[in-house]
Amino acid sequence: MSKNLTGACVFGQSGGPTSVINASAYGVIRAALDAPEITNVYGAAHGITGVLNDKLFDLGQEDASELALLMNTPSSELGSCRYKINGGKDLGRILEIFRKYDIRYFFYNGGNDSMDTCSKVSDYLEKTGYECRVIGVPKTIDNDLVGTDHCPGFGSAAKFIATTVAEIYKDSIVYDTGTITVVEIMGRHAGWLTGASALAELSGTPPDFIYMPEIPFDMGYFLHNVEAVFEAKNNCLVAVSEGICYPGGGFVSEAKASNTDGFGHEQLGGLAATLANVIRQRTGAKVRGIELSLLQRCGAHLASQTDIDEAWLAGKSAVEAAVSGETGKMVAFLRDDSCGAYNCGIVFQPLSICANAEKRVPREWINETGNYVTQEFFDYVLPLIQGENSRTVENGLPRFAKLKKVPARA
Amino acid sequence: MSKNLTGACVFGQSGGPTSVINASAYGVIRAALDAPEITNVYGAAHGITGVLNDKLFDLGQEDASELALLMNTPSSELGSCRYKINGGKDLGRILEIFRKYDIRYFFYNGGNDSMDTCSKVSDYLEKTGYECRVIGVPKTIDNDLVGTDHCPGFGSAAKFIATTVAEIYKDSIVYDTGTITVVEIMGRHAGWLTGASALAELSGTPPDFIYMPEIPFDMGYFLHNVEAVFEAKNNCLVAVSEGICYPGGGFVSEAKASNTDGFGHEQLGGLAATLANVIRQRTGAKVRGIELSLLQRCGAHLASQTDIDEAWLAGKSAVEAAVSGETGKMVAFLRDDSCGAYNCGIVFQPLSICANAEKRVPREWINETGNYVTQEFFDYVLPLIQGENSRTVENGLPRFAKLKKVPARA
Repeated sequence: MSKNLTGACVFGQSGGPTSVINASAYGVIRAALDAPEITNVYGAAHGITGVLNDKLFDLGQEDASELALLMNTPSSELGSCRYKINGGKDLGRILEIFRKYDIRYFFYNGGNDSMDTCSKVSDYLEKTGYECRVIGVPKTIDNDLVGTDHCPGFGSAAKFIATTVAEIYKDSIVYDTGTITVVEIMGRHAGWLTGASALAELSGTPPDFIYMPEIPFDMGYFLHNVEAVFEAKNNCLVAVSEGICYPGGGFVSEAKASNTDGFGHEQLGGLAATLANVIRQRTGAKVRGIELSLLQRCGAHLASQTDIDEAWLAGKSAVEAAVSGETGKMVAFLRDDSCGAYNCGIVFQPLSICANAEKRVPREWINETGNYVTQEFFDYVLPLIQGENSRTVENGLPRFAKLKKVPARA
Repeated sequence: MSKNLTGACVFGQSGGPTSVINASAYGVIRAALDAPEITNVYGAAHGITGVLNDKLFDLGQEDASELALLMNTPSSELGSCRYKINGGKDLGRILEIFRKYDIRYFFYNGGNDSMDTCSKVSDYLEKTGYECRVIGVPKTIDNDLVGTDHCPGFGSAAKFIATTVAEIYKDSIVYDTGTITVVEIMGRHAGWLTGASALAELSGTPPDFIYMPEIPFDMGYFLHNVEAVFEAKNNCLVAVSEGICYPGGGFVSEAKASNTDGFGHEQLGGLAATLANVIRQRTGAKVRGIELSLLQRCGAHLASQTDIDEAWLAGKSAVEAAVSGETGKMVAFLRDDSCGAYNCGIVFQPLSICANAEKRVPREWINETGNYVTQEFFDYVLPLIQGENSRTVENGLPRFAKLKKVPARA
């Protein structure tokens, strides 16, 4: 592959949004606009479906100051998708569109499904001999991508979770009548986010227990934990991952009514409401279920500056690497704390090892009883939530980027 | 009543916590510690029940720097209660405790129920001839207290709601498959908080409809609204108050299963889940119900500096007024915008007019169709959410006040 490759680039966002995915977008877009080798910078509407549907925006038409506001604009500004490449037909169509716009650089920002898309596109283009460099930019609040120390989006979600759990704790102890509080946190298969609630300890307001998908859920043990603490302290706060499962593998959130196991009726209110109901029936205590919901992935007002900076760097590094000849890789972080302080550098991993795999919390970072995290977990997460962001506020409200989204012309 | 009255004071917090109730506490405590007439500053554990149970803290033992951190510590640091004075027996006990500690100043921070407590204590002490000055300090995120332009706690909750609705909006439009989002906001009897979601308009991310308790809820009209917008835009975001009622008066959140009105099964997940289910059944669309829950009243990281400053001023003014001879009053705000800018001064209202009454959103501040707010509502709320707070952050997490809470000795 030649070192110099001139042509257009297309950038897309995929999967669930995060507070900082647009910071990666800005990293890609700004670097691409500034790269002499890149003739046009296109954004795909709703990820790869925008390529398939020939819906591209010409990002060269945007105001520089509005693009810069992407650094603090949550969610996926170009639109996202959850679309699995449908074999040769889709790949052929992608090549057709790439030829139409002379696209020689493809940057795709997402989680493991998106790295799978990236990998397939990369392999296909290489097979057909169409010269195009493909780089994946990692993104997921879940932090379950392999091949990277951590993932942009996770630090901000972790900061949101730790901060709001600290605030909820303060609220939950206010009456002397006693309360049990169940906070439901995202993470279908990995407990990174739920574990981050433990950082509220640093505000003096830790959850009493943390239940993660890595540990099979035992309702009896859970109720025993909660009752014991409630009896001792007259309050109890637990953090539960939406993805906790029974040993058989069924999600607790999907459990059906039963008269024998202490369950109430089938709930549509989610796991927090379900567990709150079970605890209420058992203890008679005042119980509150709280689902942090979308806020943990879109609450950009509380994004970690470290995360924003790293998300931006990941995007910028993708462009720089591609221009230098790299392809078929995902940008990744490699942590080196040997100097005693947090230090993270950029490396590049083959897309194939990042696609469709999931990184879970190591068993040794969870305590023996399976209901809290260890010091190793703290040491891992704490650097990622550092730094208060410097978002723009107008009239007391967030000033988001306003893009023109001018349709691209081939 | 003599102008000079020397003795101890007791301060209590009551009702649901807010992000800034401790800023009022700091206003009271600091001013009381600095007032030569006040010999000891006591805090009641869990409001008036702390007086009844003789559980007082000696706030003179606290570190000045920790007390100052109350300005950004959410919830009620001394503990709260929801206790209605139980006639003469409780009042007699309160007098007994006041005599024991030589309490000559009583400051009580709460909503309309708390002003009722305050009023009863004030009347009783006056009748018995025990000289003690009683001042109420307003507090409620609901903003439903009469006699004051607005209420400390409301501005911060409004800022949290407008900001998070703006962020949720960004998240809700991300897929081209379309989503309907229902955000449930606090406010059992008044729509001030739900109305505040309209301010997200200033971020370019307004809710499509707002349903408040002031307007009887019509499920058919609601579904018609939502369907029409969803068809036109492929997305729809609605803000609903937890307190919306059917014309007959029943809370929509408590509606039971019925096969005739499109309702699903009885829910424990709250109003958002109930309405999301009804919409899902009707439209088949992807629908998400989000309950902002406790975060809107304890999310101090997003508190409005205007609200913090006013909450502090309300507490400080209570002490200054009492020392000057005022009693039987509630601190209130009087807005005077005649100079063209927001300007709010302190006035004192008789406790009797503030107790047990509720201020609702004026009908003319809600649009004709009863599903959004008018410019007058905007003009009223916008000044109250101004100012980013300067909270202390340590290790990326909130640094809350740590009080010693040394038991008082008579």
